[in-house]
Amino acid sequence: MNATLDCIPCLLRQAVRSARLVSRDPAVQERMLRRVLERISRMPLDVPAPRVGREVHATIREESGQPDPFREIKHQYTRFALDLLPRLEAMVQNAHDPFETAIRLAIAGNIIDFGSELELTQDLVETTLADVLQRPLAINDLEALRAAVAGAADILYLADNAGELVFDRLLLGQLAEKDVTLVVKGGPIINDATLDDAREAGIDSLVRVITNGSDVPGTIPEMCSPDFRRRFQAASLVIAKGQGNFETLSRERRRIFYLLKVKCQVVASLLGCRLGDLVVMDNRRANRPDYDGMTHPHTTASR
Amino acid sequence: MNATLDCIPCLLRQAVRSARLVSRDPAVQERMLRRVLERISRMPLDVPAPRVGREVHATIREESGQPDPFREIKHQYTRFALDLLPRLEAMVQNAHDPFETAIRLAIAGNIIDFGSELELTQDLVETTLADVLQRPLAINDLEALRAAVAGAADILYLADNAGELVFDRLLLGQLAEKDVTLVVKGGPIINDATLDDAREAGIDSLVRVITNGSDVPGTIPEMCSPDFRRRFQAASLVIAKGQGNFETLSRERRRIFYLLKVKCQVVASLLGCRLGDLVVMDNRRANRPDYDGMTHPHTTASR
Repeated sequence: MNATLDCIPCLLRQAVRSARLVSRDPAVQERMLRRVLERISRMPLDVPAPRVGREVHATIREESGQPDPFREIKHQYTRFALDLLPRLEAMVQNAHDPFETAIRLAIAGNIIDFGSELELTQDLVETTLADVLQRPLAINDLEALRAAVAGAADILYLADNAGELVFDRLLLGQLAEKDVTLVVKGGPIINDATLDDAREAGIDSLVRVITNGSDVPGTIPEMCSPDFRRRFQAASLVIAKGQGNFETLSRERRRIFYLLKVKCQVVASLLGCRLGDLVVMDNRRANRPDYDGMTHPHTTASR
Repeated sequence: MNATLDCIPCLLRQAVRSARLVSRDPAVQERMLRRVLERISRMPLDVPAPRVGREVHATIREESGQPDPFREIKHQYTRFALDLLPRLEAMVQNAHDPFETAIRLAIAGNIIDFGSELELTQDLVETTLADVLQRPLAINDLEALRAAVAGAADILYLADNAGELVFDRLLLGQLAEKDVTLVVKGGPIINDATLDDAREAGIDSLVRVITNGSDVPGTIPEMCSPDFRRRFQAASLVIAKGQGNFETLSRERRRIFYLLKVKCQVVASLLGCRLGDLVVMDNRRANRPDYDGMTHPHTTASR
């Protein structure tokens, strides 16, 4: 799905937050914002919002001279999540349906996102965990996902953010009998997970971890490495976490299951959901939301 | 007070709303937003937000080829307010303190502002009228204003928006024994009041109406006509309506009374108020909010 005009002010709000994170000097912050404005004014806007977000955050990185401004925040989020891990593991072990609980916790991990407006606090985590376990899924293709997993030889798991990766471990545990490859970003972008973050979250000892060769906060196949593109097309099953992956992959032909928490009104409107809704969506579901104005966007050309 | 970085995404949100108002063609809307981004990226940002807003809306006007894109909306707002007028007049006549009620209604009129996020509906008006009559003033220099009016030979009244002008008539009625001049904008800018709007609201038959010669959605004296600047310095009393005037005049030396409803978090933080608060503020009040980091900004040079 392409960015709407509403995405631009929202991305600029993120730019302001990021500029303040990387510098305390108002003159530097202003220069960063000015460069971001200039860059967005010159780029095509009929692209997914994460494509614009990439330019926003690349600008902040360049202007700050910091190749990974969110490194420390990502460390904090990962440590925070690792402290929770024993409790999360017990929740899955004691669950009536461990697969569903693991799915729900993987979505709960999606709260850990600097790109959204929420601050990560213990309160937010407690509220989210309580909520995520009982709230009905706004789009519920859980049984289709369960069947697809059962029938899949190999699974490509497109990760979202650092910290969130620790929550993904619960679901990866449920996929232990499958040949699973977890995909992280090829370079630092906001708090998206990279190889370092996967190591710190202890993922690399559980499954194969690769990068997609791109620093878009989502997955735009033509901007990814040839190796990733091959695996993406060949995998029996693709599971994609988070809004960024949904926004960038929504026109893909191949079958994808999205796990996400709805974080903005633009995506909410498109999916016919509300802010905060939990989504487990098969992009081949029968009565899927008619996004991008197409009844069957998966039948259109890959972008 | 100067714009903060937070003002930029907010002004862009306004630009998106305006672009959608003036054109239904997404390509045109995108071109407008792109031009706005480019223009803001090149302008100084250590200026009041309405100075940036002027450039935003000048861009939309130029790109749309419409010299007054809000003309029809302003007509609607004025007619809507004129329908309310008899009821408002009765409220003042029956009030225990007609001056205070007229002040409060003049602030209520400030809800009619396309620049803010609120849609004008009958419900909003009813809620606002009920609220504005009983809510404590967050900054309350009402008695100082009453005294200043009593002692003033002539009063310069800086208007804000079309439609709101009809609500101003109640307060102008309370100032009938004084030599009052109402000031509107020198050219169309958002839904700010111009000469046409003053005529339509029936103001020109009540008091002298002049323009400030500028199309900033606020009052930046050095961008106004020499005639306005003379009157501004010479008037016994200046009453300024709305946030735009406060944002642009907050560093002025001369005494000014501001009447406004707090509409954004940046102004709320500066004034130590909350969103929606009602303010009647003497800029020479003893324990005034310490804005722009200065204890006595009215003693600094006029900008």
